[in-house]
Amino acid sequence: MQLGLIGLGKMGGNMRERIRRAGHTVVGYDRDPALSDVASLKELVGSLAAPRVVWVMVPAGGPTQSTVDELAELLEPGDVVVDGGNSRWTDDEKHAAELATKGIGFVDCGVSGGVWGLQNGYALMYGGSDADIAKVQPIFEALKPEGDFGSVHAGKVGAGHFAKMVHNGIEYAMMQAYAEGWELLEAVDSVENVREIFRSWKEGTVIRSWLLDLAVDALDKDEHLGRLKGFAADSGEGRWTVEAAIDNAVPLPAITASLFARFASRQDDSPQMKMIAALRNEFGGHAVESK
Amino acid sequence: MQLGLIGLGKMGGNMRERIRRAGHTVVGYDRDPALSDVASLKELVGSLAAPRVVWVMVPAGGPTQSTVDELAELLEPGDVVVDGGNSRWTDDEKHAAELATKGIGFVDCGVSGGVWGLQNGYALMYGGSDADIAKVQPIFEALKPEGDFGSVHAGKVGAGHFAKMVHNGIEYAMMQAYAEGWELLEAVDSVENVREIFRSWKEGTVIRSWLLDLAVDALDKDEHLGRLKGFAADSGEGRWTVEAAIDNAVPLPAITASLFARFASRQDDSPQMKMIAALRNEFGGHAVESK
Amino acid sequence: MQLGLIGLGKMGGNMRERIRRAGHTVVGYDRDPALSDVASLKELVGSLAAPRVVWVMVPAGGPTQSTVDELAELLEPGDVVVDGGNSRWTDDEKHAAELATKGIGFVDCGVSGGVWGLQNGYALMYGGSDADIAKVQPIFEALKPEGDFGSVHAGKVGAGHFAKMVHNGIEYAMMQAYAEGWELLEAVDSVENVREIFRSWKEGTVIRSWLLDLAVDALDKDEHLGRLKGFAADSGEGRWTVEAAIDNAVPLPAITASLFARFASRQDDSPQMKMIAALRNEFGGHAVESK
Amino acid sequence: MQLGLIGLGKMGGNMRERIRRAGHTVVGYDRDPALSDVASLKELVGSLAAPRVVWVMVPAGGPTQSTVDELAELLEPGDVVVDGGNSRWTDDEKHAAELATKGIGFVDCGVSGGVWGLQNGYALMYGGSDADIAKVQPIFEALKPEGDFGSVHAGKVGAGHFAKMVHNGIEYAMMQAYAEGWELLEAVDSVENVREIFRSWKEGTVIRSWLLDLAVDALDKDEHLGRLKGFAADSGEGRWTVEAAIDNAVPLPAITASLFARFASRQDDSPQMKMIAALRNEFGGHAVESK
Repeated sequence: MQLGLIGLGKMGGNMRERIRRAGHTVVGYDRDPALSDVASLKELVGSLAAPRVVWVMVPAGGPTQSTVDELAELLEPGDVVVDGGNSRWTDDEKHAAELATKGIGFVDCGVSGGVWGLQNGYALMYGGSDADIAKVQPIFEALKPEGDFGSVHAGKVGAGHFAKMVHNGIEYAMMQAYAEGWELLEAVDSVENVREIFRSWKEGTVIRSWLLDLAVDALDKDEHLGRLKGFAADSGEGRWTVEAAIDNAVPLPAITASLFARFASRQDDSPQMKMIAALRNEFGGHAVESK
Repeated sequence: MQLGLIGLGKMGGNMRERIRRAGHTVVGYDRDPALSDVASLKELVGSLAAPRVVWVMVPAGGPTQSTVDELAELLEPGDVVVDGGNSRWTDDEKHAAELATKGIGFVDCGVSGGVWGLQNGYALMYGGSDADIAKVQPIFEALKPEGDFGSVHAGKVGAGHFAKMVHNGIEYAMMQAYAEGWELLEAVDSVENVREIFRSWKEGTVIRSWLLDLAVDALDKDEHLGRLKGFAADSGEGRWTVEAAIDNAVPLPAITASLFARFASRQDDSPQMKMIAALRNEFGGHAVESK
Repeated sequence: MQLGLIGLGKMGGNMRERIRRAGHTVVGYDRDPALSDVASLKELVGSLAAPRVVWVMVPAGGPTQSTVDELAELLEPGDVVVDGGNSRWTDDEKHAAELATKGIGFVDCGVSGGVWGLQNGYALMYGGSDADIAKVQPIFEALKPEGDFGSVHAGKVGAGHFAKMVHNGIEYAMMQAYAEGWELLEAVDSVENVREIFRSWKEGTVIRSWLLDLAVDALDKDEHLGRLKGFAADSGEGRWTVEAAIDNAVPLPAITASLFARFASRQDDSPQMKMIAALRNEFGGHAVESK
Repeated sequence: MQLGLIGLGKMGGNMRERIRRAGHTVVGYDRDPALSDVASLKELVGSLAAPRVVWVMVPAGGPTQSTVDELAELLEPGDVVVDGGNSRWTDDEKHAAELATKGIGFVDCGVSGGVWGLQNGYALMYGGSDADIAKVQPIFEALKPEGDFGSVHAGKVGAGHFAKMVHNGIEYAMMQAYAEGWELLEAVDSVENVREIFRSWKEGTVIRSWLLDLAVDALDKDEHLGRLKGFAADSGEGRWTVEAAIDNAVPLPAITASLFARFASRQDDSPQMKMIAALRNEFGGHAVESK
C-alpha cells in the first residue's frame, strides 16, 4: 500500500526504510529537503491515492498540532491520520475531534524500539476505531517485530499513547530497580565481582530481561561506570504517567520514586537539603557544611 | 563427585535430582526418613570420602545454625560446608569462623530458580575462597543453567547470599513496576485491552522480561485477576536488602516502596490512615468514615 | 470599607461575620436566598460604591469561572475581584487576563483556617499587583489572625493560591509523619502508653506543633482510634502540589508518599497487589489468598 | 536528692546545671578531669548514699556498654542505672538483664532538647518498672519543661528510647515536609516572597510548629540559604526507626523518603543514576553527560 510519512529524523527515517523493505510505497516529507521525497505536505497528499493514510512522526506539542491542522485542510473524508509521535494522550482526543469535523479518521500509535527498531521491529500500541485501524493495518504489520507479539489495538483514541506512556513509566522503575541493586552491590566490600553478578543473572533468575542484558553491555564497556556522571534526563512520559496516576487516584510509589531520582540527579545542589541542614543547625547546633 | 545434601524439601529434592542427572553421587539427609538416604548426619558424613563437600539446604536461622554446629563436630579439616539456603548474609561470616576453627571450609551460595530449577537450572551466586569453591565447582556446574550465564563467584564469604538478596530486592521493584503499570491501565476507560497490551510488550519493547511473560501467563488464567486478593507476603530478603542499604547509606526508594506496598497489602485497616482521618476531622471538620 | 462577598457557605458565612466584627460593611450574595443579603450579583454590584472590591468564595472550577465571567460584565474599570476559594493557581492568570480586558483588577487569595477561623483569624496568602492589593488590604487586616503573622503578599497573580497549595502539601506530609510514628509506636508491645507519649511531646520537643495538639485531642476522644476507618480523602491541593513539582522538576518524595497513602487508603482491594500476588504465584508457587 | 551523672559533655553538662538549679546534689564524672567532680566511677559511687541513682550520658554503643559493665561491678542491689544517652532500644533489654543479675535496676530515658534544654527543659521519655522509675522521679521533674507536658513513662524497659527514636523519625519527615515545600516555592517565578510566606504561616495555619519557627529564623539569617550546602547528616535514630518499622511490617514511606534524601545529599555523584544514564545510552542512544 501507499503511506505518507511526515518527519524523517532518526526514528522516521528508519521506519520509512523498514516499511519499504516490506514492499510498501512510502512518500516521505521532512522540513529538511535533503531528507524529503516531496517539497510540501500538499505535494505529499497529492501523490497518494484515496483513501490516504498519513503517518505523522514529528515532535509532540506544537509541531504535531500544526501538522494536524495542515492535514485537516489537505486531506479528504475517508483518509486517516496516524500520530506515531510521543504526543500526550490527552492531545489525541482533540486531534481526533478536529479531524472528525472533516470526515478524516485518526489513530494514535505509541512506538517503541529506538535505535534497534529498523532491525528488530518496532513495538506498536495503537488506539482508534476498528475501521480506521484496518486502513493502517498493513503498515503496522510491516513495522512490528516478527512473531506473535509487538503490536496491540489498545482501545479507543488515546489508548495507544496511554499504553506507550505506561510502558515508559514501567521502564523507569525497572531501570531504577537495577540501578539501586547495582549501587548497593558496589557499596559492599565483600562483594568483589558486581559486573559478573549482573552477567550471571542473564539466565535462570527471576530478573532476567532485555534491560539486564543492556546493563551488562554497559558494564562491559566501563566496569564501574566511572566515565559517566550520575545525571539522567527524563523524556516527559514518566511525568505524564505520574500525572495520569494522580488523575485516577492510583498510587505509583516505585515509578514516582524513579522519576524523582532523575530530578534530583540533575541538581547541582539540593535546595531542600539546604533547608534540612539549616533546620538541623537551628535546633541542635549540628555542624553544617558551608560553601 | 560425591556430595552430601542436607534438606530434601521441594527445593533440595529437585536439586538432588538435577545433580544426579549430571552423573554425581548424592547422599541426601532429611529429618523425614521417607525422603532421606541415610539415618543421620553422622551416617551421611561417614558415607563420603574426604575431602567432603556437604551442602546445607535447610531453613535459615535456627535450623541452619544447628546443622552447621553439628557438622563442625562431624567433619574434618579440608572438608567444605556449603550453605545454599536463604541465610542472611551476616550469618555467613559467623558460620565460616565457627567452621574455620576446625579447619573446615565454608561457601555461601544463593540459589534462584524455584519450581523451574530442576528443568532449567538454578542461578547460583556464591562467596568464599577460591580453594573452597574449587572443591564445589562440579556441583555448581551441574546445578547451573546451560550456557554461559547463571553462576558467579560473587566475592568473599557472604557475597553469595548478599548478591542473591539484592537479586530479590530488584525483583520486588520490578514486580512493583509491572503491577503499578497494570493498575493504571486498568483504571482508564479508553484503554480496553490491558491483557493484550501486556502480551504485545513481549517483543520489541524495552520492558520485555521473564517476569512480563509470567504476568501474561497470569492474565491468561484470570484476565482481571478478579479471583485474587491484593495481598502479598514477603520472604525476608526484601527486608534485608533495605536494611543493608541503610547500613551502607545507599538510598533505595523504589525497592523500599515495593516492600512497604506489601506490608500495607496485609493490613485489614491502616492504623496510620486512621490517624490521618482523625487529624482531618479535628482541624477541618472533614467527614470521616466510622466503623 | 465596603465589601461584596459571593458565597456564604460555612467558610464564607464565618468570614462575613469576622469582617463585620471589624467594622466593615459586607454585602453578601449566595445562591441560597436564606443566606443572601441581595437577590443577585447585579444587585450586589449596584449596592457598592466604586472602586468596588468583590470577594469570590465559591467552589473552584466551574462555579468560580462563571462568577468571574459574570463579574466581568457587571464591574467597572478600577474595581477588584478577589478569588478566595480553592482555585488551582493556573486558573488565576486566566481570570486575571479576562478581567484585565475590562480594566478590572484581580487578586488571588489562599485562605486557611477552617472551623477555627472565625475565632482565631484566617491565614491569608495573596498574589497580585501592589495597587490591587492595596484596595483589599483593610479586609485582609480584618480576616487575618491578631499579631505579626498570618498574612503575606506572596507574589504575582497566582502566587497566593500557589502558596496555599504548598501549605497543604506540607500539611499532608506532616500529618503522615505523625501517623507513621503513631502506627509504629502502637505496633510494639513494650510501648504501653502511646497516647501519653504523644501528649508529652507537646513541650520541649522538636516536633511540637498545632497538628500534634490536635492528634492528642483526637486520642483523648478515642485512645486507639478504634472507632475510625483508615480512610482519607484528599482535597485536590495535594495532587496539584505534586503536579506543580513535576512541572518544575522538583522531587517531593515525602509529600507524594503522603498523597499516595491516601489513595491506597480508599481502595477496598489493591489491584497492583493482586498483580504482585499473581506473579509470586507464577514463579514460585507461593500461596496466594483467593477470594 | 543525690544523683551520679556520668558524661559531662555539652548535653550532660547542661543537664547537671539544670538539676542543680532544682536543688539536687549532682556528682558528675567525665573522662576529662577538667569537667569532672570526681576522679573515677568508683569515687562517684562511693560518694552517693544507697539506694543510688546513676545517670549515664555517654555515647551509645561501646562507651555506654563499658560504663554499664563497670557500674554492674560497683553498684549494689537496689541502686538504679538510667541510660539517658542515644542508645538503640534493643540494647536496653541487654543492659537491664545484665544489671538485674546484680539486683540493680535499669531505666532507659530518651532525652530531647538540644541546646535549648538548659533554659526550656528537656523532653523525657522513659521506660522501666514503676519501682525503678519512682527512684528517679525527682530528677525527671527537675529536667522536664515546666507545665503539664514533656515527660512520659512510655512503657517497659526500652520503651523510652523507642519513643525517642520514633520522635526523631517524625522529626525527619516534618523537616522534609517543610524542605520540600520551600524548594517548590523557590522554584516558581511568580512566587516572590518565600521567606515571608514561611513567616506568615506562624499563625492561623495548620502547619504552624516550632520547626517552622526555626525555619523562619534560618531564613532571616540567609534568605535563600545560599551559604549552605545541601548536605545533611543523620544521627542513627532515623535509620533505627526504619529498621524497627521493617521488623514490625509497618510501612513508613514518608519517614523513609526523608532518610534516603539525606543519604543522597551526601553523595558527590550518584552511582545508581550512573546506571540509569548508562541504560538510557544503551537502548536509546540518549546523550549522557560524561566526566
